Amino acid sequence: MLIRCCRMSRVLAALAFLYLTGTGPAGGGQEQTDPLPSWNNGRAKKAIVEFVRATTDKTSAQYVPPEQRIATFDQDGTLWVEHPMYTQVMYCLDRVVALAKHKLEFWKREPFKTVLSGDRRAIGKLPLKDLEEIAGATLSGVTVEEFNATVRQWLKTAKHSRWKRPYTELTYQPMREVLSYFRANGFKTYIVTGGGQDFVRVYAEQVYGIPPEQVVGSVGGTKFSYAKDGRPILIKVPKLLLNDNNGGKAEEIHMMIGRRPYAAFGNSSGDRQMLEYTGAGNGARLLMLVLHDDAKREYAYGPAQGLPNSKIGTFPQALYDEARQRGWFVISMKNDWNRVFSFDE
Amino acid sequence: MLIRCCRMSRVLAALAFLYLTGTGPAGGGQEQTDPLPSWNNGRAKKAIVEFVRATTDKTSAQYVPPEQRIATFDQDGTLWVEHPMYTQVMYCLDRVVALAKHKLEFWKREPFKTVLSGDRRAIGKLPLKDLEEIAGATLSGVTVEEFNATVRQWLKTAKHSRWKRPYTELTYQPMREVLSYFRANGFKTYIVTGGGQDFVRVYAEQVYGIPPEQVVGSVGGTKFSYAKDGRPILIKVPKLLLNDNNGGKAEEIHMMIGRRPYAAFGNSSGDRQMLEYTGAGNGARLLMLVLHDDAKREYAYGPAQGLPNSKIGTFPQALYDEARQRGWFVISMKNDWNRVFSFDE
Repeated sequence: MLIRCCRMSRVLAALAFLYLTGTGPAGGGQEQTDPLPSWNNGRAKKAIVEFVRATTDKTSAQYVPPEQRIATFDQDGTLWVEHPMYTQVMYCLDRVVALAKHKLEFWKREPFKTVLSGDRRAIGKLPLKDLEEIAGATLSGVTVEEFNATVRQWLKTAKHSRWKRPYTELTYQPMREVLSYFRANGFKTYIVTGGGQDFVRVYAEQVYGIPPEQVVGSVGGTKFSYAKDGRPILIKVPKLLLNDNNGGKAEEIHMMIGRRPYAAFGNSSGDRQMLEYTGAGNGARLLMLVLHDDAKREYAYGPAQGLPNSKIGTFPQALYDEARQRGWFVISMKNDWNRVFSFDE
Repeated sequence: MLIRCCRMSRVLAALAFLYLTGTGPAGGGQEQTDPLPSWNNGRAKKAIVEFVRATTDKTSAQYVPPEQRIATFDQDGTLWVEHPMYTQVMYCLDRVVALAKHKLEFWKREPFKTVLSGDRRAIGKLPLKDLEEIAGATLSGVTVEEFNATVRQWLKTAKHSRWKRPYTELTYQPMREVLSYFRANGFKTYIVTGGGQDFVRVYAEQVYGIPPEQVVGSVGGTKFSYAKDGRPILIKVPKLLLNDNNGGKAEEIHMMIGRRPYAAFGNSSGDRQMLEYTGAGNGARLLMLVLHDDAKREYAYGPAQGLPNSKIGTFPQALYDEARQRGWFVISMKNDWNRVFSFDE
C-alpha cells in the first residue's frame, strides 16, 4: 500500500511537471492547471480569470499591452493578517522595549512608559497621536541599512499571538496565487500600503515576490549626510513625507508608478480612492475588496457580520454600498477561499 | 552601379542580421557589433564596457544578479541639451503666453509681465524665486491627463533656438547607446532628474525607452478629488513635494527605487550626491560625469575651458577635483564622442 502511494505520488508529480512545462502528451500545452486552486468556484474567482483573459488575449477588445499591465494590492488585511494589530505597530512596540535598555528616558515618559508596562489593554487604547510618536522614535535615527537589518532580525523571531508563527507566514494563500497568476500573465504587481514603505520592502521580495521598487507605502523622510568616516549615508528622520492612505493612495500611485492600474485589491476605507481611481480608467478594470467574514479560520469584522467595525481595517457599510453600486467584487473569505493560509489543511 | 550598391546593401543587411541574431557563420555568436559606435576608443568607453562585463559575467567576482542591476541617469546635460535653458523652463515660459489669453492678470503682474514682453535678456535674468512662481502657475491647476496632453502637444511644435529641431531630437546619441547597452545586459535604466517627474514621463518612454515608473524627478503635489460629474481625478497643485537635486537625488533614489544603483551618470554639482551614494556600495560601481567641452558641436561650459560656470549645469572645479580623487570618469564630449546627435554626419 505504501509503495502504491509512493507510485501514485510519482505519477502525479510527473503529470504536474508535464503540465508546468507545457509538454503534456495531448493538446500541446492547451490544458492548464488551475492557477487559483485555493479559490472556490464562484463570482470572485470567475471575475479574476475573466479579467486576465480579457486583458491578455490579443483578440480581445479589452486587450492591454504588457507595459501597461499594472495591478496594485493593499497589504494589511488584503495580503496578510492585520489583527489584532498591524505587524509594523508590533515591531514598533517591540523596538520601544529593545531601545529602553539604552534610552532610559523611555521609562519615565509617556507613551513609552505604557508600552514598557506590558499592559496590553492600555497599549491597545493608545490614541493615534501616541502611536505616531512611538513610530517616530522607533523608525528613525538610523541609516536605511541599519533599519533593514533590525527589521530583518525582528521578523526572524517575532510571532503572531494567535498562530505562534512568524508574521511572514500569515499571508493569504489565495492572494499569493492571484499575485503569481497576474505576474505569469505579464502584470507588474505592486503593493500599495498605508504601512511604511521601508518596512514592507525588507520582506516583500521574499514573501510576495515583489521587488522593493514595486512597494509603494507611507514614506518617512531620509536625510543624505556623511558618516564620521566620510562615507555618504541616508539617515531615517522622524518626518512623515507621504501618508499612503485614502486619497494618498491614488496620489502615490501616480507619483511612484505614473500609470493608472488595471486592477486594484483592498479591504478597507483606506483603499476606496485607489479602487475609484483605478476604476475611472477605460477598458477592463478589476476592483476587489477582501471581506473578513471568517472568524474560525481568521477574523470576522465589518458590516457583513453586523459586528461593530474594528479600528483596524475599517470596512463600513458605506464601502459595501459603494462596492455594490460600482460593480466592485467583495471577496468573502469564508465562501470564496477554500484555504486561508499555506499551512491550512 | 546602382545594382551593385543595392546588392552590397543587401549583403551588409544580411551580415548585420546574422550578427544581431547570433547566427553568424563562424564563432557561434562570439563576434559582436560595437554596442557603442558613437564613442571613440578611450578610457571612458573602455570603463563602460569593462563595467558591464564585470557585473554580468557569472564567473566575475563582481557579478551582480539581474534584479540588482540599476543604473541611474541625470537628464538635462547628461542625456540631452540643457542650454541655453532647461527645456521644461521653455515650456513654462510658452505656457505663460498661452495662458495669458485667458488669465488677463498676467499682463499686469510680474514676473509674468516680463515673460510676456518677450525680452529674452530680461527673461534670462529672472531670479529663481520668479521662475518658481512661473512654474507653480503653469504646472498646476489641471488634471494629470490634461497636463500630459498639453506637454505632448507642445513637444510636437516647440523647437530649440539653435538647431531648429524639436527638443526630443536633441538627445546625445552616445548616451542613448549606453542606455540600450545597459538594458541589453539586464540593467534597469532610470532617469533621476532635477526636472519635473510628470514632465519627463510624458516623452521618456518614446525618447529614451524608459517607462514612467523608471522616471524619478522633482515632484509637484497632486490632490485626489472628484470632477463635477463625480469622476475621480488627480489635480496638480502648486506645491514642490520633492526637490530631486543634490542630496535629494540620493534620498529619492532610496524612496522610488529602494536599491542602491551600480552605475550613475551626471554632469553637474546637482548630481554629486547621487554619484557619491552610488559609489559607496560594494563591488563594481561606475560613476561618470559628462563634461561639456565642445562649443562647436554642442556647448562648452565649466572649469575645463577656464570659462565661467554657466548658471545651467554647474560643473565647478571642486566637482572636477572630487571626480579625480574618487576615480569617477569625466566624459569629454569633444574627445570621447565621435558624434553628439543622431542627425550628425
